[in-house]
Order: sequence, then C-alpha cells, then structure tokens
Amino acid sequence: MRLSKLAFVFCLLTLTCAASFAQDSAAIEQVLTDQAAAWNRGDIETFMHGYKNAPDTTFIGKTLQQGYQPILERYKKGYSTPDAMGKLDFSNLNVRMLGKDYAVVTGNFHLTRNTAGGGDAHGIFSLVFEREPDGWRIILDHTTSS
Amino acid sequence: MRLSKLAFVFCLLTLTCAASFAQDSAAIEQVLTDQAAAWNRGDIETFMHGYKNAPDTTFIGKTLQQGYQPILERYKKGYSTPDAMGKLDFSNLNVRMLGKDYAVVTGNFHLTRNTAGGGDAHGIFSLVFEREPDGWRIILDHTTSS
Repeated sequence: MRLSKLAFVFCLLTLTCAASFAQDSAAIEQVLTDQAAAWNRGDIETFMHGYKNAPDTTFIGKTLQQGYQPILERYKKGYSTPDAMGKLDFSNLNVRMLGKDYAVVTGNFHLTRNTAGGGDAHGIFSLVFEREPDGWRIILDHTTSS
Repeated sequence: MRLSKLAFVFCLLTLTCAASFAQDSAAIEQVLTDQAAAWNRGDIETFMHGYKNAPDTTFIGKTLQQGYQPILERYKKGYSTPDAMGKLDFSNLNVRMLGKDYAVVTGNFHLTRNTAGGGDAHGIFSLVFEREPDGWRIILDHTTSS
C-alpha cells in the first residue's frame, strides 16, 4: 500500500512536470510566432519585444553585439525595406528547459525574399530564453546564416 | 540597529553570491582551458570530456548534430592530423549564470595552423553548460567560423 502511494505521488509529480514543460514550451514558441508575425508586417519594434530589454542582451551573427538598443539598430539598418525583410518562417523548433527560469531553443529560419530584397536566406539558431515577469524573453540569440 | 543587521545580512548574501559566481565561473573556464590543452596535444577523446556524454548534447556548426558520439566522430573526421588540429586558443570568455545549475559562455576561438593544416581559422561561439555530478559540462555548442 505504501508503495502504491509512492507510485501515485511519483506519477503525479511526473505529470505535473510534463504539464509545466508543455506550458513553458508553448509560451516560448508563442514568442517566436509573435516575432515572425511582427516581422511579416514590417514591424521591427514589435519583433524586438521577443528580446529582453536589457544592456546585456546579446546577439551573435558574424560578430557579437550587446544591448537591446544596438540589436534593434542592427535590425533596422539591415532590413530597411519590406523587400529586405521578406517573409520570415521558423521551423524545427526544439525547446529544452534549463531549470525553471531558463530555456534554450534551437531551430531554423527561412526568409523568402525577391531578388530586390537580396533573395532567399536561411540558417540555424540557438536562443537562450529567460522567464521575465511579463513572459519569456530572449537574452542570447546566436544565428548562423547558411 | 535592526537596519544595520539587515544591511549586514544583505552584504553577506551579496558576498556569498559573488564568491559562488567566481567559483562557478573559474570552474567553467577551467573546463575550456583543459579542452584547449587536450586539443593542443592531439587528444580529441580528452577534449570531448568537456561535453556531457549524453544523446541530447548538441553541436551547431553549419548544421545541427546531436549526441556525444556523433560529435566526437565529427571532430575525429574533421581534424584527423596534427596539422589540421593546429594550436587552439580561446579568448574573450564571458560567463553568465542561468540559475544555479546552468550557464552560458560566449567567446572566440583561434586555430593557428600551417598551410598543410588548412591555414589559420577563427570564429565565435556560445556554449550552454550544465552542472553535472562530476563538474560543469557543455550541453550545447554553437560555433560560427568567420
């Protein structure tokens, strides 16, 4: 009897963990869905809300850039026209929790663009997310273009 | 008096946190120092000890690779001679704790190599570390070559 009680508690804990992971994972994926939607209507300011507004938020492309504002400026400079922004898609998302308040997400991006915008672009990324009072936010974006 | 006691406790907590960060940060940097030393004596198996021996350990270069063994095979295939391995240096290391048991490290690598080995190579990386029973180990390595 004691064993079956233990087994019950164990099952309950496992289910609670699984439910909590599913909830966090869905919330994190929603941030990326919202980012893509903002990007696809040409709204870089709203796209940036996926990042934590902090001076140590980091973007790594070919070089490392630190700070929400410099990252925003980089996007604005690199994607100044609707053609250059194109249509953004994320795929192959994989969320891995790092404790309760952090997670790392890997995935692929694909930009569908016309020739004037620079043509299609795609690549791979890893994102470190932090749980903030207002939701999950990216604190490190490492993106490699193929 | 109550305030100065509170201030004392606060200072003590701050000092404890700083000491704990310094300790974790040093332990993590030591993993990378050990990796570079192993690499520089041509010992890829020991170099790999910096990674967690798990099927979900991930390496992202141009593509994503999962699993300790496939990552080891990739290194062995890509760096099969002492010339190809060259001399490895890490620089600009920046450690950021993600809670108590995870950390993310950014930095640069530089491979000094002769022409037969493919010439010098360098780039930037972000590494997610996990605290394991036997020390800090890399669970995600994202490396972009310049």
